[in-house]
Amino acid sequence: MLSNSQVKHINALKIKKYRDEYKEFIAEGNTLVADLIESPYEIAGVYAESQWIVGNLEMIRRHNVPVFEAEPQDMDRITSLTSPSPVLAVVKIPTGYGDVIEFPDTDSVEKAIPGLKNVLSFMLESISDPGNFGTMLRIADWFGIRNVICSEHGVELYNPKVVQASMGSVARVNVVYTDLQGILETLKGSIPVYGTFLQGDSVYSVPLSENGIIIIGSEAHGISEKLTQFVTKRLFIPSFGSSADGKAESLNAAVAAAVVISEFRRRIT
Amino acid sequence: MLSNSQVKHINALKIKKYRDEYKEFIAEGNTLVADLIESPYEIAGVYAESQWIVGNLEMIRRHNVPVFEAEPQDMDRITSLTSPSPVLAVVKIPTGYGDVIEFPDTDSVEKAIPGLKNVLSFMLESISDPGNFGTMLRIADWFGIRNVICSEHGVELYNPKVVQASMGSVARVNVVYTDLQGILETLKGSIPVYGTFLQGDSVYSVPLSENGIIIIGSEAHGISEKLTQFVTKRLFIPSFGSSADGKAESLNAAVAAAVVISEFRRRIT
Repeated sequence: MLSNSQVKHINALKIKKYRDEYKEFIAEGNTLVADLIESPYEIAGVYAESQWIVGNLEMIRRHNVPVFEAEPQDMDRITSLTSPSPVLAVVKIPTGYGDVIEFPDTDSVEKAIPGLKNVLSFMLESISDPGNFGTMLRIADWFGIRNVICSEHGVELYNPKVVQASMGSVARVNVVYTDLQGILETLKGSIPVYGTFLQGDSVYSVPLSENGIIIIGSEAHGISEKLTQFVTKRLFIPSFGSSADGKAESLNAAVAAAVVISEFRRRIT
Repeated sequence: MLSNSQVKHINALKIKKYRDEYKEFIAEGNTLVADLIESPYEIAGVYAESQWIVGNLEMIRRHNVPVFEAEPQDMDRITSLTSPSPVLAVVKIPTGYGDVIEFPDTDSVEKAIPGLKNVLSFMLESISDPGNFGTMLRIADWFGIRNVICSEHGVELYNPKVVQASMGSVARVNVVYTDLQGILETLKGSIPVYGTFLQGDSVYSVPLSENGIIIIGSEAHGISEKLTQFVTKRLFIPSFGSSADGKAESLNAAVAAAVVISEFRRRIT
């Protein structure tokens, strides 16, 4: 059984203020917790029902994870989910997380994000919905996007809804916070920059490169003017809705990201 | 200013029990409300700030919509959103909604869903997340999918989160609830049936038809055994994650639907 102070501590981590103070975040569910235990993240503690502990003894020992046995009613008291999972992890937020990295020159970019210029990366501008952000991390992970470059004021990576929606991808994708205009200015001319707009060249037929930065605009405002100026190729996802009935005005930001990166990857298969 | 009974009625519609009782649902936001007013849906009432009313007089008159002027503090009391919009509509649920349609033979299918055999349609099995369901309606609308065939126990179309996530597509897509196994049995042999699995033929290279049913499985369980038996072509979305670090185990159901339908549509452009 968990103590009241343990329950209180875990519940505090649902709030950003306390995540910042304790430098910890929470994650729930078999797969997600296992992904985090197997990742470079440091686990402060795993709170789990006995059955989970018995089934995962080998992994727990191999990683030397502190485990606290909990009853189902304990899990009810600490969960953020509608139906609690048998396991919840408290995970340490890495040093430096949330620091806004500055890139005065291309060498500093190469040092902070090795190989950036040779691969495809996502740049997320002011994404505010945690579910969307988590889904984009999962998309990045699936399609082999290692770097996700975020604006300073986007949603926080360790928000429990981001962590859950990412389904473990939070452990495998490199998320960097920076001044997006600054890094694009620094990289100008050295890497193609793609953006998705409601007008442009069809993503299905335009030439696509094997490296580049794909900017995803915010749900509400799309890609801002100040970033649009750096876009070297405007992409458009054709719509097929009947114009008689009207049609969807846009796609969800994460969905648009998936359609675009899928097309980049299709070309090289 | 709205009366207490108006506020109470609108807030009751956030709960399924009262949506069923009053046969009404709510929708918020400029674009969404305008889409619904312009659609065949019947509007029971629009609750809006004076500025919205002044800006939309022509549309209000053309559709003879009952309008109630509200103060910003009224909108605060009725909104389901984090930041209230200046307009909320109460919309009538069409007669027959939620009735589970039975299809004893192919003629009855053709009568209920005209042209089904000649077009691409989505079949959603037990989707339980309202945001995912709404996003899939928006994807269907964008990519010109007219029919979305849902299992009897999936999430409700008029859940406010579905309505909001659909961004107006709820007004343009034909959603049918039926026994999925029953309709597939009825249609057997007369239309290709596609399903997305973690193994199969790459969606990028397999032949795709211009008509068919694309089954999207539930987030938690994928496509069930009882529907899998009707799948005539198993599709697989290749992943590009590095195997050294592990990789995402799957894509979000709505994201997978988008990648697949995008590829169908790309082929015909």
